Amino acid sequence: MAKKEKDFVKEITPMEEDFSRWYTDVILKNELVDYSPVKGFMVIRPYGYALWERIQGFADEKFKATGHKNMYFPLLIPESLLTKEKEHVEGFAPEVAWVTHGGSQKLGERLVIRPTSETIICHMYAKWLNSYRDLPYLYNQWCSVVRWEKATRPFLRTSEFLWQEGHTLHETNEEAQAETLQMLDIYRQVAEDLMAIPVITGQKSEKEKFAGAHATYTMEALMHDGQALQAGTSHNLGQHFTKAFDIKFQGRNGQEQHPYHTSWGISTRLIGGLIMVHSDNRGLVLPPKMAPIQVVIIPIAMNKEGVMEKANNLYDSLKAAGIRVELDDNKENSTGWKFNQYEMKGYPIRIEIGPRDIENNQVVAVRRDKLEKETLSLDNIEETISSMLASMQVDMFEKAKAHRETHTYVVDDYEQYKKDLPNRPGFAKMMWCGDRECEDKLKDETGASIRCIPFEQENLGCKCHICGKEAKHMIYVARAY
Amino acid sequence: MAKKEKDFVKEITPMEEDFSRWYTDVILKNELVDYSPVKGFMVIRPYGYALWERIQGFADEKFKATGHKNMYFPLLIPESLLTKEKEHVEGFAPEVAWVTHGGSQKLGERLVIRPTSETIICHMYAKWLNSYRDLPYLYNQWCSVVRWEKATRPFLRTSEFLWQEGHTLHETNEEAQAETLQMLDIYRQVAEDLMAIPVITGQKSEKEKFAGAHATYTMEALMHDGQALQAGTSHNLGQHFTKAFDIKFQGRNGQEQHPYHTSWGISTRLIGGLIMVHSDNRGLVLPPKMAPIQVVIIPIAMNKEGVMEKANNLYDSLKAAGIRVELDDNKENSTGWKFNQYEMKGYPIRIEIGPRDIENNQVVAVRRDKLEKETLSLDNIEETISSMLASMQVDMFEKAKAHRETHTYVVDDYEQYKKDLPNRPGFAKMMWCGDRECEDKLKDETGASIRCIPFEQENLGCKCHICGKEAKHMIYVARAY
Repeated sequence: MAKKEKDFVKEITPMEEDFSRWYTDVILKNELVDYSPVKGFMVIRPYGYALWERIQGFADEKFKATGHKNMYFPLLIPESLLTKEKEHVEGFAPEVAWVTHGGSQKLGERLVIRPTSETIICHMYAKWLNSYRDLPYLYNQWCSVVRWEKATRPFLRTSEFLWQEGHTLHETNEEAQAETLQMLDIYRQVAEDLMAIPVITGQKSEKEKFAGAHATYTMEALMHDGQALQAGTSHNLGQHFTKAFDIKFQGRNGQEQHPYHTSWGISTRLIGGLIMVHSDNRGLVLPPKMAPIQVVIIPIAMNKEGVMEKANNLYDSLKAAGIRVELDDNKENSTGWKFNQYEMKGYPIRIEIGPRDIENNQVVAVRRDKLEKETLSLDNIEETISSMLASMQVDMFEKAKAHRETHTYVVDDYEQYKKDLPNRPGFAKMMWCGDRECEDKLKDETGASIRCIPFEQENLGCKCHICGKEAKHMIYVARAY
Repeated sequence: MAKKEKDFVKEITPMEEDFSRWYTDVILKNELVDYSPVKGFMVIRPYGYALWERIQGFADEKFKATGHKNMYFPLLIPESLLTKEKEHVEGFAPEVAWVTHGGSQKLGERLVIRPTSETIICHMYAKWLNSYRDLPYLYNQWCSVVRWEKATRPFLRTSEFLWQEGHTLHETNEEAQAETLQMLDIYRQVAEDLMAIPVITGQKSEKEKFAGAHATYTMEALMHDGQALQAGTSHNLGQHFTKAFDIKFQGRNGQEQHPYHTSWGISTRLIGGLIMVHSDNRGLVLPPKMAPIQVVIIPIAMNKEGVMEKANNLYDSLKAAGIRVELDDNKENSTGWKFNQYEMKGYPIRIEIGPRDIENNQVVAVRRDKLEKETLSLDNIEETISSMLASMQVDMFEKAKAHRETHTYVVDDYEQYKKDLPNRPGFAKMMWCGDRECEDKLKDETGASIRCIPFEQENLGCKCHICGKEAKHMIYVARAY
């Protein structure tokens, strides 16, 4: 990189120097979020929100295609509802915000701002459900939730975040289990197909499961720095809540029974993952399917005859091909400034078009992930660009997957793992007996946790790497956000 | 209406008998909303939420087409921010919900759940804005807000509701004024072009304007019962907030100055208007553009050879033509039950197809607003149905407009108006001197309020109808929701 180019991006701390500052720099310089006057609460600015809108659009379409409908439940939940399911209240009560006054009146009963909506939704489902003919209930809501966090970081952990929460009821446990796994697979598609983030899917340990769940399934991604991120979870809630809230229906046999229940969610946290998987020291790198703007056209020597005309034609033909394109004809900013600006913003492709290009019926294109100049013919340019975008999407996924693979280790000896871990961040694969004691020991001694018991089990021996007893599961272990 | 048919819909109270019960019946029977365990808070059920999604989709597209971007600001606002603009805090403080504890900790400063977001947004804008080059700021957010209401009604007035709030900054007052009116016109399109609700647009009086606004503009619709509904507002906020929050930019002349400011919002309240403008004693009547399902196909004598095949073909061709269509092949419910069910739900067109129709290459179609059977050829059926939907959309708008016109009266004599009002609900047009005293007197004596000073002024004399002094404005007056 030439010295001059380096200067342009000096505002972003290199990730090798300080990963955490790099992350914050990328977010703040790109105006994705800002800190709000309420500690731990973030403002999501337009460029950040546009990323969320892409996730919403993709996921909402998949939810609807699988028969789900959206609803909206109240923001506030009475204390008495929150406390109905024992494990749930123990999990959430320490981190909720309490509303005590409405207008000038002190409330008879305190209300919590929803940390998640199982309780109020179950309360309503109990009122609505009558017969097996009404099932399944396949509903979702897009909303914000509040969990009072002590240490916060934009997107990754904030006291308020945006998410969707699906809440379904089923006649049988088998159907609930199938739904739980179906929704996890839709989340996998959001991560892998839309965001180009490869994920490991599997089940959470008892310790790590959702408060009140029968079983929690998760997708786990690996960040640049070798730490893991829980990127979405889907819970089979069994009958825990449907019994606590007395949700019943008349079954096919005429008997009353409790339905089986699932919930599942993804949140703005995914955007944190997007940044920590793909971006670099120049700023954001956005997979084409996620990018609010996929191509920016930068005319060179705009005063020269024919340049703006060709640039406008190019803009029109890319737009007509369904490409999200922008033309930057601003005259106050230099071309070099523009190049660096759009690299920071992570626009997938920048196209330069100047007098010499026009003479030669060509343009120069630069893919953000490669930063190499390519000369492209203007003939069928929209097809060429579409296929460049498609290749870039695939390449980014493959690159992230390769990074994960070079940062995934098979543990041979637990003592050695403990020594190596500080210098070898990433996923460790090992065997586990299934006991909570070993899980706690692992966490205490290494700071790493069991990310999941993956669906794709591998046989790495028959003994638990931690205690030496008989192993039950192969697990993924990592320090995590 | 035959007796038997009447029986089917007996669950909805006729509007002539009790308008308020009719409204609630239509909403609850259709499962648009339900009451939640927190007083004044509603649950929006899937069919109701689908109506909101149509409004969102239409409006969001218009916002984006006019250069606006979405963002998200925190749910909670510190008390000290809420109180920075004097008129604003006086307007909202009595009706906010207070958060006093986060987790187990008492908060150092109380927080309010946003009743609207001018204050927190202005706080952030002050931090971000530098130069005239950054302007205009054209931003919007979709969210829920909380205003502690004493008397609530689903959609019309609830302690929490869904809305969008746009917040823009401009270099000059002229630009802010143009934005304010542009957004009001987009709202008019939402009401008239999407929802088939005719509206009167104009300015609010000083008394009725938004707390802290320079001027508030509104669109007002007339309900079946002759009461008005404020259906959307757009505020020119001048420099009230930008001064209070010290938002400044460097102008073209190099001097620091305060920008001009607008905000504008529509909410789930519009759905209440939709019901009270179009629906009838059989239930909902949905304009085709608003209807989540536009056409339902009901096969008759499903066992007969060819019926299901033809019904499925019909479904495929309507779907391929972009029509939102459903096929009801349920065998447990009778045809009569289905007819009544879909009439209650307000599906714009129902199509019956049976053996005799197939023989004659035809179907029977019934428009929900007319309830008359029409025989249609199966040739080019998708074009026929598309044009029926388009006519229905127009007819519903015209019908609502005709209703408004027959319920709009020119006031000749104020004393006579007072006497007539109880038996003649609707819009009254009269002249007004512009004084608050007359406005208060009108409200005290009649319960009616000035809905707006319409953009389309008419000359109804030169004297104020209330006090006899010189008139300044022609106004629309009505009792309102």
